[in-house]
Amino acid sequence: MTLLSEESIIESCIKMAEKGAGKVSPNPLVGCILIKNGEIIGKGFHKKAGSPHAEVNAINDAKSKGFNVKGADLYVNLEPCSHYGKTPPCTDLIIKSGIKNVFIGMQDPNPLVNGKGIDIMKRAKINVISNIKEKECIEINKIFVKNMKEKLPYVTLKIAQSLDGKIALKNYSSKWITGIHARQFVQGLRFRNDAILVGSNTIKKDNPELTYRGKKKKVLKRIILTRNPATFTEKYNVLSDEYSSETYFISTDISKSGYRKMLSELYSMEITSVLVEGGAFVFSKFIEYDLFDDIYFMIAPKIIGKGISYFENFEITNLNKSKNLRFEYSRKIGDDILLYYKKNK
Amino acid sequence: MTLLSEESIIESCIKMAEKGAGKVSPNPLVGCILIKNGEIIGKGFHKKAGSPHAEVNAINDAKSKGFNVKGADLYVNLEPCSHYGKTPPCTDLIIKSGIKNVFIGMQDPNPLVNGKGIDIMKRAKINVISNIKEKECIEINKIFVKNMKEKLPYVTLKIAQSLDGKIALKNYSSKWITGIHARQFVQGLRFRNDAILVGSNTIKKDNPELTYRGKKKKVLKRIILTRNPATFTEKYNVLSDEYSSETYFISTDISKSGYRKMLSELYSMEITSVLVEGGAFVFSKFIEYDLFDDIYFMIAPKIIGKGISYFENFEITNLNKSKNLRFEYSRKIGDDILLYYKKNK
Repeated sequence: MTLLSEESIIESCIKMAEKGAGKVSPNPLVGCILIKNGEIIGKGFHKKAGSPHAEVNAINDAKSKGFNVKGADLYVNLEPCSHYGKTPPCTDLIIKSGIKNVFIGMQDPNPLVNGKGIDIMKRAKINVISNIKEKECIEINKIFVKNMKEKLPYVTLKIAQSLDGKIALKNYSSKWITGIHARQFVQGLRFRNDAILVGSNTIKKDNPELTYRGKKKKVLKRIILTRNPATFTEKYNVLSDEYSSETYFISTDISKSGYRKMLSELYSMEITSVLVEGGAFVFSKFIEYDLFDDIYFMIAPKIIGKGISYFENFEITNLNKSKNLRFEYSRKIGDDILLYYKKNK
Repeated sequence: MTLLSEESIIESCIKMAEKGAGKVSPNPLVGCILIKNGEIIGKGFHKKAGSPHAEVNAINDAKSKGFNVKGADLYVNLEPCSHYGKTPPCTDLIIKSGIKNVFIGMQDPNPLVNGKGIDIMKRAKINVISNIKEKECIEINKIFVKNMKEKLPYVTLKIAQSLDGKIALKNYSSKWITGIHARQFVQGLRFRNDAILVGSNTIKKDNPELTYRGKKKKVLKRIILTRNPATFTEKYNVLSDEYSSETYFISTDISKSGYRKMLSELYSMEITSVLVEGGAFVFSKFIEYDLFDDIYFMIAPKIIGKGISYFENFEITNLNKSKNLRFEYSRKIGDDILLYYKKNK
C-alpha cells in the first residue's frame, strides 16, 4: 500500500517530465514512476528526442536497483505509446514486465495512439486508471497537444512594452525597453521553443542575434518574415554568425490565410513551437488573426508617449469583440512586470 | 519592561492611524499607544478632523480604564503638535500627564511644528526618541507630507486600460474597460481622496456620477477642467444629483504653469488629495508635467487595437528621458490586474 495519493504521484511525474523541456521536441514531456509495496522502485523521464521513453527509463531504473517490477504500479503523465516510432511501443514493455496497475494523467492526443495504448493494456488484463490531474498534464504538454490536434506549431508572443503599450520609441533609438532581468527570462522562453520568429523590420532596425545564450545548449531556428529576402546581407547577425544555416526567410501573404499557411509550413519544417518576438506589425497580425496561444507581456515601468504601438491594425467597435485573454500569472522581474496570458478560447 | 520592540509598537500605531483614512483630512493620520510596566494601558487614534488628537484619546483611554499615566511611555507615529489648532497642543498634555519617554515615528513636516514639539518635550525633561519606522510613517501620511511641504494636493492617477494601453474604444461605445471588482477597488481610492478630477470630455462622453458609493459615508468634491462651464447643464449627473453643490468647474490654461496654478487653487479650496480619473488628455498632461504622485493602472485582459491612447502628447527621443515610475505592488482584481507605481523622484 502506498501512502501517496495517485494525484501527488502524477504531479511528481509532471515535475520529472519538465526536465526534458526544450530538449524532447517533437516529442511530448513524459515522466514515469514505478511503485511496489508502497515504495518507489523506479523513476524515469524522456530526456531527448530519439532516446528511450520515460516508461523504459523507469523500468530500467528499477531493474538496475535490483527490483522485480512484476506486480508493480506504473504512473505516467501521458498514455504510453502503442506504435513503433523511433523506439518500440511502451505498451509491449509494460505488458511483458507484468505491471499490475497503470495510472495515466491524460490520453495521448496523437491520433496514432489516442486511447489505443489504454485498450491494449486493458486487453492484457492490466488495470488502467486514466485522467488523473488531466488539466496539469495537458498544460505541460500544451505544445504536443496543439501539434497533434492542429498540425501547427504552438505560438507564444513575447511583447516587451511600456505601461502605455509602446514597444519602441518613434525613432527606434532604443533596442530594449525592458531591463536585463526580463531579457534573461526571455532566454528561458527561447530555450523552450524550437524557433524564433520576427518580421523583417526587426532585423533591419535592431540587427538582433536571436540566439539562445543561456547555460544549456540549444540552437534555435530563426524565421524571418519578408517579401524581399534578397535585401538581407551578411551585415546582419542572423546571416553572418555560426548559426546562419538556421536562418530561414519566409515570404508570407499578410492575409489570415497567408499566416495560417506560413504556420503550417513551419510545422512541416518540424518546428513544434515558435516564439514571436516582434515587431509591431507581426505581433498585430498574430493577434488580429487569433493565431497565437500564449502571450508574455514584459512591462517596463515607463511611459513613452508617442511611440510604436504594436496593435493598431484594426478597430473594435464593441468591447465584447475585443481580443480577450485569460490571465495566468504575474511576476516582478527586475524593475519590470511579467504578465502571462493565454488566448481565451 | 516591555517585550515589544519600539518598531513593532510604532507599527501598531500606524495600523490604528490607518483607521482614520479618508476621514481626517486635512489632518494627518495618527495613532498612539501608552505603555507602562510592559503593559499597554491606553490606545487612541485621530478619528476625524476637529476631534481630539490620537495622544489625547490614548491618555483618556488609559485614565478611563483606571490607569495612572504618570511615568508611562508614549508611542506615536507622528511628532505631537506644539501649537494651538482646533485643539490645544498635545505636548502640553504629555508634559502635564508626567509621561516619561516619548517614541516618535517621524517629525511633523508641518512648518508650525517640525521639531518644536520634540524640543518642548525635551526641555520638560522627557526622554524623546525619534524616527522609528520613519519610512512607513511617511508613507501613510504621504498626503499630509506633500500638503505641508509643497502646499499642493497629493495627486493620484487611476488609469483603467487595455493591455495595449488604450483607455477607450475609438467610438467611445464602452464606458468601462475593466470589470466590476476593479471598479469596486476604485471606490476605495475615492474614499481616501478629497476630490475627483476629470476633464470635460469625460463628463460629455460618459456622464459619470463621480461619487463614492461604498459602505462608509463620504462626499467628494468633483472638479471638472473646462474652458466652457456654460456648456454643462443639468442633463449631466454631476449637476443634477444631490451633490451638485460639490461640483466645481475650473478653467485651466493647459500649460505646465496653468496646471500648477490649478493644483494650487485646489489646495486653497482645502482639497488635500485628488484622484484624477481621466480622460486621455488630462492623464497625459499630469504625466507630461510630472504633476502626479501615484498611478494605479487597472489593466483589463483585452487588446483593443485602434483606440484612445492616453498619452501621445509628446515624443521621447531617448529612452532615458521617458517617464520612469517606481513599482510598488501588483494585485489581481477580478479579471483585471492592478499595477501600482509611484513617481520616480
